[in-house]
Amino acid sequence: MRLSPRHPRYASLRVRARLADAHRRGLVVPEGLIAHGRGETFDYLLGERTSPSARRAEHVAAEWLLAARHPVVSVNGNVGALAAGEIAALARAIPGLAVEVNLFHRTGPRAAAVARALRTAGVPRVLGVRPTATIPRLPSDRARVDRRGIARADVCLVPLEDGDRAEALRALGKRVISIDLNPLSRTSRAADLPIVDEVQRALREIARAAGVRRARSTPPRMPPFDRRAALADALETIARELSRAAARGPIGRPRRRASRRRSRGIGGRSRRTL
Amino acid sequence: MRLSPRHPRYASLRVRARLADAHRRGLVVPEGLIAHGRGETFDYLLGERTSPSARRAEHVAAEWLLAARHPVVSVNGNVGALAAGEIAALARAIPGLAVEVNLFHRTGPRAAAVARALRTAGVPRVLGVRPTATIPRLPSDRARVDRRGIARADVCLVPLEDGDRAEALRALGKRVISIDLNPLSRTSRAADLPIVDEVQRALREIARAAGVRRARSTPPRMPPFDRRAALADALETIARELSRAAARGPIGRPRRRASRRRSRGIGGRSRRTL
Repeated sequence: MRLSPRHPRYASLRVRARLADAHRRGLVVPEGLIAHGRGETFDYLLGERTSPSARRAEHVAAEWLLAARHPVVSVNGNVGALAAGEIAALARAIPGLAVEVNLFHRTGPRAAAVARALRTAGVPRVLGVRPTATIPRLPSDRARVDRRGIARADVCLVPLEDGDRAEALRALGKRVISIDLNPLSRTSRAADLPIVDEVQRALREIARAAGVRRARSTPPRMPPFDRRAALADALETIARELSRAAARGPIGRPRRRASRRRSRGIGGRSRRTL
Repeated sequence: MRLSPRHPRYASLRVRARLADAHRRGLVVPEGLIAHGRGETFDYLLGERTSPSARRAEHVAAEWLLAARHPVVSVNGNVGALAAGEIAALARAIPGLAVEVNLFHRTGPRAAAVARALRTAGVPRVLGVRPTATIPRLPSDRARVDRRGIARADVCLVPLEDGDRAEALRALGKRVISIDLNPLSRTSRAADLPIVDEVQRALREIARAAGVRRARSTPPRMPPFDRRAALADALETIARELSRAAARGPIGRPRRRASRRRSRGIGGRSRRTL
């Protein structure tokens, strides 16, 4: 189907079409499509832009990744489909960043497809296609990791992670940086540094901030991060967007006088509908 | 993969698995899976239960459908996959209710698969498999309807509708009852009677209310409905759930003193995570 650029949700429709295509090519599983929809609603409620609070988190994330001895970014099917280019740019901006494929619904061909998408986007070395280590006490395939990557990492960037693994990584003493649009998810709540932002926007900002940081002469360090405040900020942003949206009201005139008040929310389409 | 009933999101995981299966059988398209995810987030934010306001809307919907000359319910792939049984029960509760398959991404086999799911669930007569009429000024396949169903209907129940068609049906002078978890969607905002509730819960309650109503001796009528108030109620419910959720805060102790305040949100898993 051809998408019209005049559709009020054109940008979302394009991303959806891209994911549906990645699904047909075997990168993304049905559960990944459903997860994308969940994130879409949160992004919509967050105003579909990086909040000042998220931007601050992204800058601290850049600093942590630069200061780490063994930084790693974990890539699943949705990240491979949506942000392979951004992962490649991040790997260029953070020297020593390991890039590892890690799938909840793992099959050999799927792991290979995600690795291929990353290599095509310019990632020189992709770990995790043939796992060589295991995270203890984690029942899903997400436990299967690479000895040279997640297994030995001190700082893990986990975009679109599931809650079980975020908790398991943290229990191993690793610092967990999550990228998750849901500020209420177990992943966001378990992460040391929860970034509540869309994955492409977040990865780009981390890479940009890392470039800026490296130009400075002082060595990077691991500044503290107030995760409670970051989660609270995201929820406040949602509450603010909701009350703004609430003012729009119904479309079109009431058919009969259903209420005494006249509908004020006339004005046809709005770009801000989901 | 086997699902554990102890998982904090077990109920959602089961529905997701059911939809993923319906997708493999050709009922549900990738875009339908993404749409389900969007709805899942709204349901979560609405507390995953029928609000008093939604229940009132469902009762008025039952009355409108009983009072209609030509009531119709429109069924797409997701509705067929999730609620075929509920559609059959509704058809039993509302005499003369036409059940029509209507697909955004229409193919012959897909329309037949949805019709088959409905018949298996007990719907005796399914319209829309071979469309015989067209809704004017609607570019998608959703314009293709049945002469004996949507084309002549005075009251249309449209669960999980898209905004374009909700507006097109309304422009034809039909009364539109929507079931949509997003109170900000164009569908909810264009409907004469927006029901902001999960599709299974909503259909069950409409069928139940119709049974109760039919037991009364007075003829059903079309009472007015305050759609502005219904949408505002849903947004208030979300705002209330959000502030309740916000109190939970991060999981686990802070790694180093990231903030002066101690984290209070310890307590392991909560059922209310997404």
